[in-house]
Amino acid sequence: MIIIGIDTAIRKTGYGVIDMRTNGSFRILDCGLIRNAASLPHSECLRRLAGGIRELVSSFKPEAASIESAFVSRNVKTAMILSLARGAVITALAECGVPAFEYSPKSAKRAATGLGEADKSQVASIMANLGGLDVSQIPDDATDALALAFCHGNLALRSAGGLVRPPVPI
Amino acid sequence: MIIIGIDTAIRKTGYGVIDMRTNGSFRILDCGLIRNAASLPHSECLRRLAGGIRELVSSFKPEAASIESAFVSRNVKTAMILSLARGAVITALAECGVPAFEYSPKSAKRAATGLGEADKSQVASIMANLGGLDVSQIPDDATDALALAFCHGNLALRSAGGLVRPPVPI
Repeated sequence: MIIIGIDTAIRKTGYGVIDMRTNGSFRILDCGLIRNAASLPHSECLRRLAGGIRELVSSFKPEAASIESAFVSRNVKTAMILSLARGAVITALAECGVPAFEYSPKSAKRAATGLGEADKSQVASIMANLGGLDVSQIPDDATDALALAFCHGNLALRSAGGLVRPPVPI
Repeated sequence: MIIIGIDTAIRKTGYGVIDMRTNGSFRILDCGLIRNAASLPHSECLRRLAGGIRELVSSFKPEAASIESAFVSRNVKTAMILSLARGAVITALAECGVPAFEYSPKSAKRAATGLGEADKSQVASIMANLGGLDVSQIPDDATDALALAFCHGNLALRSAGGLVRPPVPI
Protein backbone atom coordinates (compact mmCIF):
# COMPACT_ATOMS: atom_id res chain seq x y z
CA MET A 1 0.00 0.00 0.00
CA ILE A 2 1.60 3.23 -1.17
CA ILE A 3 0.94 6.24 1.06
CA ILE A 4 2.00 9.85 0.71
CA GLY A 5 2.47 11.86 3.90
CA ILE A 6 2.30 15.65 3.59
CA ASP A 7 3.36 18.17 6.23
CA THR A 8 1.84 21.31 4.71
CA ALA A 9 3.08 24.88 5.02
CA ILE A 10 2.90 27.80 2.61
CA ARG A 11 6.71 28.17 2.31
CA LYS A 12 8.05 24.68 3.03
CA THR A 13 5.94 21.55 2.60
CA GLY A 14 7.51 18.22 3.54
CA TYR A 15 6.44 15.03 1.79
CA GLY A 16 7.27 11.38 2.19
CA VAL A 17 6.09 8.44 0.08
CA ILE A 18 6.24 4.96 1.59
CA ASP A 19 5.33 1.46 0.48
CA MET A 20 3.73 -0.13 3.52
CA ARG A 21 3.94 -3.91 3.70
CA THR A 22 1.28 -6.05 5.35
CA ASN A 23 3.77 -7.11 8.05
CA GLY A 24 4.00 -3.47 9.21
CA SER A 25 7.42 -2.73 7.72
CA PHE A 26 7.79 -0.22 4.90
CA ARG A 27 10.13 1.09 2.26
CA ILE A 28 10.72 4.81 1.68
CA LEU A 29 10.13 5.54 -2.02
CA ASP A 30 10.79 9.27 -1.89
CA CYS A 31 10.89 12.16 0.53
CA GLY A 32 11.70 15.82 0.25
CA LEU A 33 10.40 19.36 0.27
CA ILE A 34 8.33 21.67 -1.88
CA ARG A 35 9.88 25.08 -1.23
CA ASN A 36 8.42 28.50 -2.01
CA ALA A 37 10.71 31.52 -1.81
CA ALA A 38 9.64 34.22 0.64
CA SER A 39 9.38 36.62 -2.30
CA LEU A 40 6.60 34.64 -4.03
CA PRO A 41 3.01 35.87 -3.68
CA HIS A 42 0.53 33.52 -2.03
CA SER A 43 -1.24 32.68 -5.29
CA GLU A 44 2.04 31.44 -6.80
CA CYS A 45 2.88 29.42 -3.65
CA LEU A 46 -0.50 27.67 -3.89
CA ARG A 47 -0.07 26.99 -7.61
CA ARG A 48 3.38 25.45 -7.04
CA LEU A 49 2.13 23.44 -4.06
CA ALA A 50 -0.83 21.94 -5.96
CA GLY A 51 1.41 21.23 -8.97
CA GLY A 52 4.01 19.52 -6.78
CA ILE A 53 1.38 17.27 -5.18
CA ARG A 54 -0.03 16.36 -8.62
CA GLU A 55 3.46 15.39 -9.85
CA LEU A 56 4.08 13.19 -6.81
CA VAL A 57 0.69 11.51 -7.20
CA SER A 58 1.31 10.89 -10.88
CA SER A 59 4.78 9.41 -10.16
CA PHE A 60 3.89 7.16 -7.21
CA LYS A 61 0.12 6.55 -7.56
CA PRO A 62 -0.52 6.55 -3.79
CA GLU A 63 -3.64 4.83 -2.52
CA ALA A 64 -4.03 7.35 0.30
CA ALA A 65 -2.64 10.64 1.56
CA SER A 66 -1.95 11.40 5.20
CA ILE A 67 -1.91 15.07 6.10
CA GLU A 68 -1.46 17.00 9.30
CA SER A 69 -4.76 18.02 10.86
CA ALA A 70 -5.41 21.75 11.20
CA PHE A 71 -4.27 22.94 14.57
CA VAL A 72 -6.05 25.92 16.04
CA SER A 73 -3.24 28.40 16.44
CA ARG A 74 -3.51 31.32 18.82
CA ASN A 75 -2.39 33.40 15.86
CA VAL A 76 -5.48 33.46 13.64
CA LYS A 77 -3.62 34.99 10.70
CA THR A 78 -1.05 32.17 10.72
CA ALA A 79 -3.84 29.58 10.95
CA MET A 80 -5.61 31.17 7.99
CA ILE A 81 -2.49 31.16 5.78
CA LEU A 82 -1.81 27.53 6.68
CA SER A 83 -5.43 26.74 5.79
CA LEU A 84 -4.97 28.34 2.36
CA ALA A 85 -2.06 25.95 1.74
CA ARG A 86 -4.07 23.00 3.07
CA GLY A 87 -6.88 24.01 0.70
CA ALA A 88 -4.48 23.80 -2.27
CA VAL A 89 -3.16 20.39 -1.15
CA ILE A 90 -6.57 18.85 -0.40
CA THR A 91 -7.97 20.16 -3.71
CA ALA A 92 -5.07 18.66 -5.70
CA LEU A 93 -5.48 15.31 -3.92
CA ALA A 94 -9.26 15.29 -4.42
CA GLU A 95 -8.88 16.14 -8.11
CA CYS A 96 -6.47 13.19 -8.46
CA GLY A 97 -8.92 10.91 -6.63
CA VAL A 98 -6.58 10.25 -3.68
CA PRO A 99 -8.47 10.08 -0.35
CA ALA A 100 -6.89 12.27 2.33
CA PHE A 101 -6.76 11.38 6.03
CA GLU A 102 -5.86 13.78 8.83
CA TYR A 103 -3.70 13.08 11.87
CA SER A 104 -2.37 15.37 14.56
CA PRO A 105 1.44 15.81 14.74
CA LYS A 106 1.27 14.06 18.11
CA SER A 107 -0.52 10.98 16.71
CA ALA A 108 1.99 10.78 13.87
CA LYS A 109 4.98 10.99 16.21
CA ARG A 110 3.43 8.50 18.60
CA ALA A 111 2.83 6.04 15.74
CA ALA A 112 6.41 6.47 14.55
CA THR A 113 8.32 6.49 17.81
CA GLY A 114 5.93 5.56 20.60
CA LEU A 115 6.25 9.11 21.92
CA GLY A 116 3.91 12.00 21.14
CA GLU A 117 6.62 14.51 22.05
CA ALA A 118 9.54 13.05 20.06
CA ASP A 119 11.81 15.59 18.35
CA LYS A 120 12.61 15.72 14.64
CA SER A 121 15.94 13.86 14.95
CA GLN A 122 14.34 10.99 16.91
CA VAL A 123 11.56 10.70 14.33
CA ALA A 124 14.12 10.84 11.50
CA SER A 125 16.37 8.12 12.92
CA ILE A 126 13.47 5.73 13.61
CA MET A 127 11.89 6.39 10.19
CA ALA A 128 15.26 5.89 8.45
CA ASN A 129 15.79 2.67 10.35
CA LEU A 130 12.31 1.25 9.68
CA GLY A 131 12.31 2.50 6.09
CA GLY A 132 15.73 1.15 5.21
CA LEU A 133 17.48 4.47 4.56
CA ASP A 134 20.52 6.21 5.98
CA VAL A 135 19.22 9.00 8.25
CA SER A 136 21.42 11.53 6.41
CA GLN A 137 19.31 10.91 3.29
CA ILE A 138 16.16 12.25 4.97
CA PRO A 139 15.76 16.03 4.70
CA ASP A 140 14.93 17.59 8.06
CA ASP A 141 11.45 18.75 7.21
CA ALA A 142 10.42 15.50 5.54
CA THR A 143 10.57 13.49 8.77
CA ASP A 144 7.13 14.61 9.94
CA ALA A 145 5.70 13.76 6.53
CA LEU A 146 7.16 10.24 6.73
CA ALA A 147 5.74 9.86 10.24
CA LEU A 148 2.32 10.94 8.94
CA ALA A 149 2.47 8.36 6.13
CA PHE A 150 3.53 5.64 8.57
CA CYS A 151 0.79 6.66 11.03
CA HIS A 152 -1.89 6.15 8.38
CA GLY A 153 -0.33 2.92 7.11
CA ASN A 154 -0.26 1.56 10.61
CA LEU A 155 -3.90 2.44 11.26
CA ALA A 156 -4.99 1.08 7.86
CA LEU A 157 -3.31 -2.27 8.66
CA ARG A 158 -4.84 -2.43 12.13
CA SER A 159 -8.31 -1.60 10.79
CA ALA A 160 -7.91 -4.19 8.01
CA GLY A 161 -7.17 -6.69 10.80
CA GLY A 162 -10.39 -5.62 12.57
CA LEU A 163 -8.49 -4.15 15.52
CA VAL A 164 -9.73 -0.59 15.10
CA ARG A 165 -12.39 1.22 13.12
CA PRO A 166 -11.27 2.24 9.60
CA PRO A 167 -10.19 5.89 9.36
CA VAL A 168 -12.57 8.28 7.59
CA PRO A 169 -11.23 10.52 4.81
CA ILE A 170 -11.84 14.26 5.07
CA MET B 1 -12.32 44.06 -19.56
CA ILE B 2 -13.94 40.85 -18.33
CA ILE B 3 -13.82 40.36 -14.57
CA ILE B 4 -15.05 37.50 -12.40
CA GLY B 5 -16.12 38.32 -8.85
CA ILE B 6 -16.15 35.44 -6.37
CA ASP B 7 -17.75 35.47 -2.93
CA THR B 8 -16.23 32.29 -1.53
CA ALA B 9 -17.72 29.90 1.04
CA ILE B 10 -17.37 26.15 1.46
CA ARG B 11 -21.10 25.44 0.94
CA LYS B 12 -22.30 28.33 -1.24
CA THR B 13 -19.96 30.38 -3.43
CA GLY B 14 -21.44 33.26 -5.37
CA TYR B 15 -19.93 34.33 -8.67
CA GLY B 16 -20.55 37.15 -11.11
CA VAL B 17 -18.89 37.78 -14.45
CA ILE B 18 -19.04 41.30 -15.90
CA ASP B 19 -17.74 43.02 -19.00
CA MET B 20 -16.52 46.40 -17.79
CA ARG B 21 -16.51 49.17 -20.39
CA THR B 22 -14.01 52.02 -20.37
CA ASN B 23 -16.82 54.50 -19.66
CA GLY B 24 -17.45 52.77 -16.30
CA SER B 25 -20.65 50.97 -17.32
CA PHE B 26 -20.74 47.19 -17.54
CA ARG B 27 -22.71 44.23 -18.79
CA ILE B 28 -23.47 41.17 -16.65
CA LEU B 29 -22.37 38.08 -18.58
CA ASP B 30 -23.26 35.50 -15.95
CA CYS B 31 -23.93 35.17 -12.26
CA GLY B 32 -24.91 32.34 -9.98
CA LEU B 33 -23.86 29.96 -7.25
CA ILE B 34 -21.63 26.94 -6.79
CA ARG B 35 -23.48 24.91 -4.18
CA ASN B 36 -22.14 22.04 -2.06
CA ALA B 37 -24.64 19.92 -0.15
CA ALA B 38 -24.13 19.82 3.63
CA SER B 39 -23.57 16.07 3.34
CA LEU B 40 -20.45 16.42 1.16
CA PRO B 41 -17.04 16.01 2.82
CA HIS B 42 -14.68 19.01 2.67
CA SER B 43 -12.38 17.39 0.09
CA GLU B 44 -15.31 17.00 -2.33
CA CYS B 45 -16.49 20.60 -1.70
CA LEU B 46 -13.01 21.86 -2.59
CA ARG B 47 -12.83 19.70 -5.71
CA ARG B 48 -16.21 20.96 -6.92
CA LEU B 49 -15.31 24.56 -6.11
CA ALA B 50 -11.99 24.45 -8.03
CA GLY B 51 -13.70 22.67 -10.95
CA GLY B 52 -16.49 25.26 -11.04
CA ILE B 53 -14.00 28.15 -11.13
CA ARG B 54 -12.04 26.46 -13.92
CA GLU B 55 -15.21 26.04 -15.99
CA LEU B 56 -16.16 29.70 -15.54
CA VAL B 57 -12.64 30.81 -16.49
CA SER B 58 -12.65 28.62 -19.57
CA SER B 59 -16.09 29.93 -20.64
CA PHE B 60 -15.51 33.65 -20.06
CA LYS B 61 -11.70 34.10 -20.15
CA PRO B 62 -11.67 36.80 -17.45
CA GLU B 63 -8.66 39.11 -17.31
CA ALA B 64 -8.87 39.35 -13.53
CA ALA B 65 -10.64 37.84 -10.55
CA SER B 66 -11.92 39.85 -7.62
CA ILE B 67 -12.35 37.90 -4.40
CA GLU B 68 -13.40 38.78 -0.89
CA SER B 69 -10.45 39.38 1.42
CA ALA B 70 -10.09 37.03 4.38
CA PHE B 71 -11.80 38.49 7.39
CA VAL B 72 -10.44 37.53 10.76
CA SER B 73 -13.44 35.91 12.38
CA ARG B 74 -13.72 35.56 16.12
CA ASN B 75 -14.52 31.94 15.39
CA VAL B 76 -11.13 30.49 14.37
CA LYS B 77 -12.62 27.23 13.12
CA THR B 78 -14.98 29.07 10.76
CA ALA B 79 -12.10 31.22 9.53
CA MET B 80 -10.00 28.12 8.85
CA ILE B 81 -12.75 26.37 6.85
CA LEU B 82 -13.33 29.53 4.81
CA SER B 83 -9.56 29.68 4.18
CA LEU B 84 -9.60 26.10 2.87
CA ALA B 85 -12.22 27.16 0.32
CA ARG B 86 -10.25 30.32 -0.54
CA GLY B 87 -7.18 28.10 -1.05
CA ALA B 88 -9.09 25.99 -3.60
CA VAL B 89 -10.35 29.10 -5.45
CA ILE B 90 -6.99 30.94 -5.50
CA THR B 91 -5.19 27.76 -6.64
CA ALA B 92 -7.64 27.22 -9.52
CA LEU B 93 -7.31 30.86 -10.60
CA ALA B 94 -3.49 30.77 -10.38
CA GLU B 95 -3.37 27.53 -12.39
CA CYS B 96 -5.50 29.21 -15.07
CA GLY B 97 -3.21 32.25 -15.06
CA VAL B 98 -5.92 34.66 -13.84
CA PRO B 99 -4.57 37.26 -11.38
CA ALA B 100 -6.68 37.52 -8.22
CA PHE B 101 -7.31 40.75 -6.33
CA GLU B 102 -8.79 40.99 -2.85
CA TYR B 103 -11.32 43.50 -1.57
CA SER B 104 -13.20 43.70 1.71
CA PRO B 105 -17.00 43.28 1.55
CA LYS B 106 -17.25 46.92 2.66
CA SER B 107 -15.06 48.20 -0.21
CA ALA B 108 -17.09 46.17 -2.70
CA LYS B 109 -20.41 47.50 -1.38
CA ARG B 110 -19.09 51.04 -1.27
CA ALA B 111 -17.90 50.77 -4.89
CA ALA B 112 -21.27 49.39 -5.97
CA THR B 113 -23.66 51.57 -4.00
CA GLY B 114 -21.65 54.35 -2.39
CA LEU B 115 -22.43 52.80 1.01
CA GLY B 116 -20.18 50.33 2.89
CA GLU B 117 -23.17 49.07 4.87
CA ALA B 118 -25.63 48.49 2.01
CA ASP B 119 -27.75 45.35 2.29
CA LYS B 120 -27.99 42.58 -0.31
CA SER B 121 -31.20 43.89 -1.91
CA GLN B 122 -29.74 47.40 -2.35
CA VAL B 123 -26.57 45.94 -3.90
CA ALA B 124 -28.67 43.69 -6.15
CA SER B 125 -30.93 46.45 -7.43
CA ILE B 126 -28.02 48.81 -8.20
CA MET B 127 -25.98 46.02 -9.85
CA ALA B 128 -29.02 44.94 -11.92
CA ASN B 129 -29.64 48.51 -12.98
CA LEU B 130 -26.01 49.24 -13.92
CA GLY B 131 -25.52 45.83 -15.49
CA GLY B 132 -28.68 45.94 -17.60
CA LEU B 133 -30.54 43.04 -15.95
CA ASP B 134 -33.85 42.65 -14.21
CA VAL B 135 -33.10 42.37 -10.47
CA SER B 136 -35.17 39.15 -10.28
CA GLN B 137 -32.56 37.51 -12.55
CA ILE B 138 -29.80 37.93 -9.94
CA PRO B 139 -29.63 35.11 -7.38
CA ASP B 140 -29.41 36.47 -3.84
CA ASP B 141 -25.92 35.25 -3.08
CA ALA B 142 -24.45 36.41 -6.36
CA THR B 143 -24.96 40.11 -5.58
CA ASP B 144 -21.80 40.37 -3.45
CA ALA B 145 -19.82 38.64 -6.19
CA LEU B 146 -21.08 41.16 -8.77
CA ALA B 147 -20.18 44.01 -6.42
CA LEU B 148 -16.66 42.54 -6.01
CA ALA B 149 -16.22 42.35 -9.80
CA PHE B 150 -17.47 45.92 -10.21
CA CYS B 151 -15.21 47.12 -7.37
CA HIS B 152 -12.13 45.77 -9.15
CA GLY B 153 -13.25 47.04 -12.56
CA ASN B 154 -13.77 50.49 -11.11
CA LEU B 155 -10.34 50.56 -9.49
CA ALA B 156 -8.67 49.18 -12.62
CA LEU B 157 -10.23 51.98 -14.70
CA ARG B 158 -9.22 54.64 -12.19
CA SER B 159 -5.68 53.34 -12.01
CA ALA B 160 -5.48 53.18 -15.83
CA GLY B 161 -6.47 56.84 -15.78
CA GLY B 162 -3.63 57.56 -13.34
CA LEU B 163 -6.05 58.52 -10.54
CA VAL B 164 -4.98 55.79 -8.10
CA ARG B 165 -2.16 53.26 -7.79
CA PRO B 166 -2.81 50.00 -9.65
CA PRO B 167 -4.08 47.19 -7.40
CA VAL B 168 -1.63 44.39 -6.56
CA PRO B 169 -2.66 40.76 -7.09
CA ILE B 170 -2.35 38.37 -4.17
